[in-house]
Amino acid sequence: MEAYNQVGIQRRLRRFFRRDGRALIFAMDHGFEHGPTDFEGTWEHINPNVVLKKVIRAGIDGIMTLPGIARIAGKQFHGKDVGLMVKLTSKTNLRPKEDQFLQTPLGFVEDAIKLGADAVAATVYWGSPYEDVMMKNFAEVASIAHDFGYPVVQFSYPRGPYINEKYGKKEDYRVVMYGARAAAEMGADMIKTYWTGSKETFAKVVDAASGVPVLLSGGAKAENPLEFLNVVYNVIEAGGSGAVVGRNIFQRENPEPMIRALLRVIHKNEEPEEAAKAEGLL
Amino acid sequence: MEAYNQVGIQRRLRRFFRRDGRALIFAMDHGFEHGPTDFEGTWEHINPNVVLKKVIRAGIDGIMTLPGIARIAGKQFHGKDVGLMVKLTSKTNLRPKEDQFLQTPLGFVEDAIKLGADAVAATVYWGSPYEDVMMKNFAEVASIAHDFGYPVVQFSYPRGPYINEKYGKKEDYRVVMYGARAAAEMGADMIKTYWTGSKETFAKVVDAASGVPVLLSGGAKAENPLEFLNVVYNVIEAGGSGAVVGRNIFQRENPEPMIRALLRVIHKNEEPEEAAKAEGLL
Amino acid sequence: MEAYNQVGIQRRLRRFFRRDGRALIFAMDHGFEHGPTDFEGTWEHINPNVVLKKVIRAGIDGIMTLPGIARIAGKQFHGKDVGLMVKLTSKTNLRPKEDQFLQTPLGFVEDAIKLGADAVAATVYWGSPYEDVMMKNFAEVASIAHDFGYPVVQFSYPRGPYINEKYGKKEDYRVVMYGARAAAEMGADMIKTYWTGSKETFAKVVDAASGVPVLLSGGAKAENPLEFLNVVYNVIEAGGSGAVVGRNIFQRENPEPMIRALLRVIHKNEEPEEAAKAEGLL
Amino acid sequence: MEAYNQVGIQRRLRRFFRRDGRALIFAMDHGFEHGPTDFEGTWEHINPNVVLKKVIRAGIDGIMTLPGIARIAGKQFHGKDVGLMVKLTSKTNLRPKEDQFLQTPLGFVEDAIKLGADAVAATVYWGSPYEDVMMKNFAEVASIAHDFGYPVVQFSYPRGPYINEKYGKKEDYRVVMYGARAAAEMGADMIKTYWTGSKETFAKVVDAASGVPVLLSGGAKAENPLEFLNVVYNVIEAGGSGAVVGRNIFQRENPEPMIRALLRVIHKNEEPEEAAKAEGLL
Amino acid sequence: MEAYNQVGIQRRLRRFFRRDGRALIFAMDHGFEHGPTDFEGTWEHINPNVVLKKVIRAGIDGIMTLPGIARIAGKQFHGKDVGLMVKLTSKTNLRPKEDQFLQTPLGFVEDAIKLGADAVAATVYWGSPYEDVMMKNFAEVASIAHDFGYPVVQFSYPRGPYINEKYGKKEDYRVVMYGARAAAEMGADMIKTYWTGSKETFAKVVDAASGVPVLLSGGAKAENPLEFLNVVYNVIEAGGSGAVVGRNIFQRENPEPMIRALLRVIHKNEEPEEAAKAEGLL
Repeated sequence: MEAYNQVGIQRRLRRFFRRDGRALIFAMDHGFEHGPTDFEGTWEHINPNVVLKKVIRAGIDGIMTLPGIARIAGKQFHGKDVGLMVKLTSKTNLRPKEDQFLQTPLGFVEDAIKLGADAVAATVYWGSPYEDVMMKNFAEVASIAHDFGYPVVQFSYPRGPYINEKYGKKEDYRVVMYGARAAAEMGADMIKTYWTGSKETFAKVVDAASGVPVLLSGGAKAENPLEFLNVVYNVIEAGGSGAVVGRNIFQRENPEPMIRALLRVIHKNEEPEEAAKAEGLL
Repeated sequence: MEAYNQVGIQRRLRRFFRRDGRALIFAMDHGFEHGPTDFEGTWEHINPNVVLKKVIRAGIDGIMTLPGIARIAGKQFHGKDVGLMVKLTSKTNLRPKEDQFLQTPLGFVEDAIKLGADAVAATVYWGSPYEDVMMKNFAEVASIAHDFGYPVVQFSYPRGPYINEKYGKKEDYRVVMYGARAAAEMGADMIKTYWTGSKETFAKVVDAASGVPVLLSGGAKAENPLEFLNVVYNVIEAGGSGAVVGRNIFQRENPEPMIRALLRVIHKNEEPEEAAKAEGLL
Repeated sequence: MEAYNQVGIQRRLRRFFRRDGRALIFAMDHGFEHGPTDFEGTWEHINPNVVLKKVIRAGIDGIMTLPGIARIAGKQFHGKDVGLMVKLTSKTNLRPKEDQFLQTPLGFVEDAIKLGADAVAATVYWGSPYEDVMMKNFAEVASIAHDFGYPVVQFSYPRGPYINEKYGKKEDYRVVMYGARAAAEMGADMIKTYWTGSKETFAKVVDAASGVPVLLSGGAKAENPLEFLNVVYNVIEAGGSGAVVGRNIFQRENPEPMIRALLRVIHKNEEPEEAAKAEGLL
Repeated sequence: MEAYNQVGIQRRLRRFFRRDGRALIFAMDHGFEHGPTDFEGTWEHINPNVVLKKVIRAGIDGIMTLPGIARIAGKQFHGKDVGLMVKLTSKTNLRPKEDQFLQTPLGFVEDAIKLGADAVAATVYWGSPYEDVMMKNFAEVASIAHDFGYPVVQFSYPRGPYINEKYGKKEDYRVVMYGARAAAEMGADMIKTYWTGSKETFAKVVDAASGVPVLLSGGAKAENPLEFLNVVYNVIEAGGSGAVVGRNIFQRENPEPMIRALLRVIHKNEEPEEAAKAEGLL
Repeated sequence: MEAYNQVGIQRRLRRFFRRDGRALIFAMDHGFEHGPTDFEGTWEHINPNVVLKKVIRAGIDGIMTLPGIARIAGKQFHGKDVGLMVKLTSKTNLRPKEDQFLQTPLGFVEDAIKLGADAVAATVYWGSPYEDVMMKNFAEVASIAHDFGYPVVQFSYPRGPYINEKYGKKEDYRVVMYGARAAAEMGADMIKTYWTGSKETFAKVVDAASGVPVLLSGGAKAENPLEFLNVVYNVIEAGGSGAVVGRNIFQRENPEPMIRALLRVIHKNEEPEEAAKAEGLL
């Protein structure tokens, strides 16, 4: 017999993951973490109602955003079959450099429940001088969310002055793998992390997560669409469960072909070139 | 700007109501309120997994059930576009006659949240000697549920020795209307109540609810399908928002044609006869 | 991914149920519910340390008892592979006749956790004038226990003046089935109930429970061992998950052969006569 | 159907905003943030009863002040159609320079409720070394206030040693826009921020806020009235929702003509010169 | 008469300790504390289900792991006679060097209860600049766990810049003994600590613990099996209560012979060479 919250966690996870256990999630927290300048090239997307309408129409599986955006654009979700993941921590890039290795709570699990969310998320910068603070905060968020039957997503990002010093870059697979493992050992239900550069190394990240789904963090807009589709293709090949994509979507005037191409790669195992051509991206 | 829980209530209401503001909801709380004998004629439906699979496949908009059933059949809901309404009160018909005018809590708002529900429900027997107890309980349920962004449904049923004495029957439109009004005045987001016998009288119930959606309580299995489709048709004509139907669905070996016919009447305004014929019920 | 309490519930259920999903549990709450006279014939068993030592040595799967007994005889459990089920409600048979249809809390979920229990239990007398009180109490016990990862057992007993009036006897399969169903719809993880007199009727009780394990309540000491083994055999044949047995065990000077015979019937599907002979009971 | 707190938030917002969605709010928190020397030139205004009586008589839409002032001058509000916004954070300019980038709670949401307020406000200095502390505090204030049906105002001010270093000045539209966006993404119901120097740049701030009303922070007393009226005029032209004005009001012996001129610009779209002349300011 | 929680603590301790009061416990928290690279040589063990299945099959007495691992591999425990110790603090070795003298909560006592654990553990680095933080955290964990009847294990490790400075190494028996004593004085039910290099010195550690069982912390993989078996043999000779072993087990392709040899040494007092030979390690 299943616990009530176990039923809720499974039901809510399936609001993101299709039957194949994979998902494409749109990220819209850039206005906070990077500032509105991320939207300079496609300014109308600064309005979450505009960009979310396009993205949902294109068939995205889920949306990840901050509480205030979920409120402003709440009506975009009504009656739509799209998962809502509310992120509960952030930071600006205005704060002093050394404080940017810390993410701060900007809402609570209860806020996500009120908003009708299907999952909550919080960031841990592994290796940061503030690792201690974010780790404890994640533990608290996870405990409350799980009690209410909500899955918890860790944005598991190695980051901080010592990471670069010791490993050369934060995307080194040894530290990405480490962060993913730490997330799994803390009870995360999904892990979002960096691309490690190759299918082989990303497969080790997936191994380290020991069954907890690993999603790619989309990162900066790729120069050409094929480049990004290739990364996502390799994530899937490596056993990853999909991608959380922001700039590669909203920094395009018309994000819909890119979304549809990504859905082809993720859910139909189409080759990137084939998918890109089918959607007129090449 | 909207409150977070306001966003959640709207999002969750739309898990039941289609764009037309109407819904067909399947009720499965009879094992508790009437006993398993309600399933004698179609015994395989005693297993909630069996009946819910059929009902969801037929395209139902939502399911209303008790927490334990939502747990036992939780997997039927995974990845399906169907609203889940968890009822938090009930009674057996084993208890002494006079105690059957009371519904008792068998779960809490938090249980519904854990289960991944989209709404909670509780019964008030208006006119019962226990009206006081149920009224206060409904107020508490509503307060907690609303704070978490969950809509609250009142099963608003005039019932008790004094109702029959004064009005002849509990379905007299004057008492049904009264109950619906009381539900609206307490903050219900949906009202489920009896058929009052005519479109004209049901329209007064809808008026009394002053904008809170009113759904028909399906009641005992009608002798022929057309009879029940006619009632639902008149509910819609009267401004009602749909129906919550149990026995007219699960007491049929094959419930799917009936569900599809009901969906035609509710969402496409089809004439009952036309709908029944289209689904091979006549 | 599983919720933490889901893991605990599964782990703890397996402290009673073997791989075959069946269990034989010893009941020792008679000193409270019936009074110490139940021990008159085998007086040394009034000391829980004496009887529990024998019972555990015989290979019982679990023990059901009240908090104070679990304390007095706690050391019998140390290092033994036996599940501990703590019952949290009871009543004396000293109280006025009509109040004997009510069970009262005599401990809390937290007490069971402190005692190192693996499950909690509470009685509901379905049909009693106090049905309302016990139903609400069970809902509260279940909610707290589930949150802590503890399975909850309902002693689901139709009982009260109206049951006999309407159904002739409390063991009528229609009411036993009803009680089992009500337990399932409230979220019980195991159901303990009466023998309905035949394999066919007990199979309907099992059906009504829709997957929640149903265990036989052993009842008064049978005149000859075979009689009782036959009942248990039929419970298993009907799809039941075992038995909770008190008097048929502790009212025997040497309870071990009976326990071993019951284990044969339950876990090895042995014929009652064969099992009784193998243990020297015939 | 709307949540109860949703109704309260809307009702309370309209105590500030007229039908046109615009408001002129008088700010009186300078005695705390700047010290009483701000009142040197118009010393009788040090008494909040004196200045508030004038300001309310002139037709102001709302008052923003600290809890203690709301208490001392509470009677000015009795029976008056004027919104009361209670600010819950502040700092003195006595504290060490580097600590002035931090605002400290000096009251709680419950205090504002007790005072009969219509909204609460709190400051976040974006980019400050204490950004983390103020951000978390704002999140907590907002969560509590919204639950009680109170709108929340963020004084969203980029400030701190790194802002000047990186952007030249804290009024650079890129950082003002960033702060406004961050406020919106955290659930603010109104945003108060700096003038960015031009209608075009302020329009980007309004865009970034994505529908959350943006009000001008009045700042130091302008040399001539027209200058300040021009700024407010451009705020309105840029899509701003009004202004929160302190020194430009209370540092005038007779603040009423200025208030009336501002109301003309804000609510009647009058040209600044026209408005100033009509009120005898030129 | 015993308090309820006293019964639970004894019952749960015996899920680890056999009748002889000794235990061999497998440690699997290395993915978090050291990173997945600890598994490089035996990569399939990165999956906790793989390694735990082997380890439990070999007859281990208990498992010590982090909450997320207990969840991922929960099914390995079902129906198995093996104690589960959930560790509630950890740190990565990614964090800045000086922060590695701090362990951070990554779960709560309630999480361990939910998971069906039999004990909780937390680390204190005695002598660390963060001794204060961990000491207080341990006190809180112990208080809550004891109330619920759960035993508490202290990983009592002298560590930090001042330890090496003053004592030459952290394994100096004077500091190990001190740490063990401090653990005992705070109410630990088991103490896990370093090997001090000799039977004589370890006996002083055991003395200092004054009856609280002391277990060896296994440490890095020994070059040859005999070396490690000898250490464990001396721990037992010194009055120690067993060992918590990670790398010496999971860094072997086939960990079962090592486990069985350790069980011989611990529970049968076999000479290391004899035990190693019996299991084919020599």
